[in-house]
Amino acid sequence: MAQNDSLSEFLQTAVEAAKRAGEIIREGFYQTKHVEHKGLVDLVTETDKACEDLIFNYLKQQHPSHKFIGEETTAACGITELTDEPTWIVDPLDGTTNFVHGFPFVCISIGLTVGKVPTVGVVYNPIMDELFTGVHGKGAFLNGKPIKVSSQSELVKSLLATEAGTKRDKSTVDATTNRINSLLFKVRSLRMTGSCALNLCGIACGRIDLFYETGYGGPWDVAGGAVIVKEAGGIVYDPSGKDFDITSQRVAASNLLLKEAFVEVLQQSE
Amino acid sequence: MAQNDSLSEFLQTAVEAAKRAGEIIREGFYQTKHVEHKGLVDLVTETDKACEDLIFNYLKQQHPSHKFIGEETTAACGITELTDEPTWIVDPLDGTTNFVHGFPFVCISIGLTVGKVPTVGVVYNPIMDELFTGVHGKGAFLNGKPIKVSSQSELVKSLLATEAGTKRDKSTVDATTNRINSLLFKVRSLRMTGSCALNLCGIACGRIDLFYETGYGGPWDVAGGAVIVKEAGGIVYDPSGKDFDITSQRVAASNLLLKEAFVEVLQQSE
Repeated sequence: MAQNDSLSEFLQTAVEAAKRAGEIIREGFYQTKHVEHKGLVDLVTETDKACEDLIFNYLKQQHPSHKFIGEETTAACGITELTDEPTWIVDPLDGTTNFVHGFPFVCISIGLTVGKVPTVGVVYNPIMDELFTGVHGKGAFLNGKPIKVSSQSELVKSLLATEAGTKRDKSTVDATTNRINSLLFKVRSLRMTGSCALNLCGIACGRIDLFYETGYGGPWDVAGGAVIVKEAGGIVYDPSGKDFDITSQRVAASNLLLKEAFVEVLQQSE
Repeated sequence: MAQNDSLSEFLQTAVEAAKRAGEIIREGFYQTKHVEHKGLVDLVTETDKACEDLIFNYLKQQHPSHKFIGEETTAACGITELTDEPTWIVDPLDGTTNFVHGFPFVCISIGLTVGKVPTVGVVYNPIMDELFTGVHGKGAFLNGKPIKVSSQSELVKSLLATEAGTKRDKSTVDATTNRINSLLFKVRSLRMTGSCALNLCGIACGRIDLFYETGYGGPWDVAGGAVIVKEAGGIVYDPSGKDFDITSQRVAASNLLLKEAFVEVLQQSE
């Protein structure tokens, strides 16, 4: 594990990178309504790519010895193996559909793993100007103020978040809606925001009590949020209740009080 | 129909009432994490009641001859009949579950019907500081800037919003998730925000392309938003495709291009 003072420095770098990328996203966000469809696809791709380049260049300049995994790079070059080396895992634009439609849940997600353990997390929503941060052993913050997970202990009073995902084959959609059907009898209500990273931050600051998603894009969707949830007193796990595997495209999160009951209903609805 | 200059005056009154109530909601919103459960229920009820009192008192003072329908009053005194008289229809706190959980989609919805037609609409989200307004024949605005519905013409590229509702009997939940299942094969993705009035405003400013909900609380959820959608160039209708009835607890909204195809898939999924 890197020293605490380096972690603070890593956090500062990540925050600066996220803020700079946030300016690009904010600019594009307010343009999406005014471009033709062909232009819109280009705008999304360009924004995504410009943000990833900016973030990677900045982080590499500050920390030349670190490794890097990003959604765009992976799409271009195939999956990069996660090693024990300090590795920055970046989603330059989480919530692409929201970005296209102008729905305000978009963010940059930056996570640093050390020994494969998420250690520094920054998730920044530049539209709502909400900056979530977490550093291993140092707590979690929203715009500099400490945050913590909800104290809810009953499923029936819990607010659940999940997503419809992007796969539209019959078996995936049926599994998604069957699970939602089962869960609606157990929880208070359901929210879908369209951003995995912001759902994790929603758990961290107690806006939502329960979150699960399977089949999301990759480790870049969860690497930043996972630290923030843990540092806010929450827990990130596999929907089966087993340990969270950052490379598995399966995530669940809540406070400690709800985990057991949540896993039980998730398994019943599998 | 009242004169245009009176409508502008009515709008001004409604905006002032919404802003004042917004202060009360904002205050309560940031307290919900710090009160015990018993206290939380009281806080919600008190906030709801305080906002309705404030709004009604203010509107009555300015427009003593008008009629008033509010969620809180109706809960206490039974349904008030909607007449042709200028009638203010108010939801002092739409998104109560969000308010309790600290999820930022909460709003005040104020609508004025004249001859039963929604004529002035104000929906204010005091947490995100977004003020949506619309006046019959005068356009729709977000924080003073003109807004319009999306120009999307294809279901498959459309972002849909709906809600899980509050009823948890098996037939309602099954109908809800079966419909979602059918729709997921037709649209791009699904959002659930927990506020009917803000979903209508989402249609009005083009953040979402399609919205439907059945079984919501009452006319106060839609009276403000309906004007705003229409003035943004959209259309509000019954999910069957028939004319919108403000008292029916059934609503769908979109731009004109999507209506026919949306109604078709809604009917198939009934």
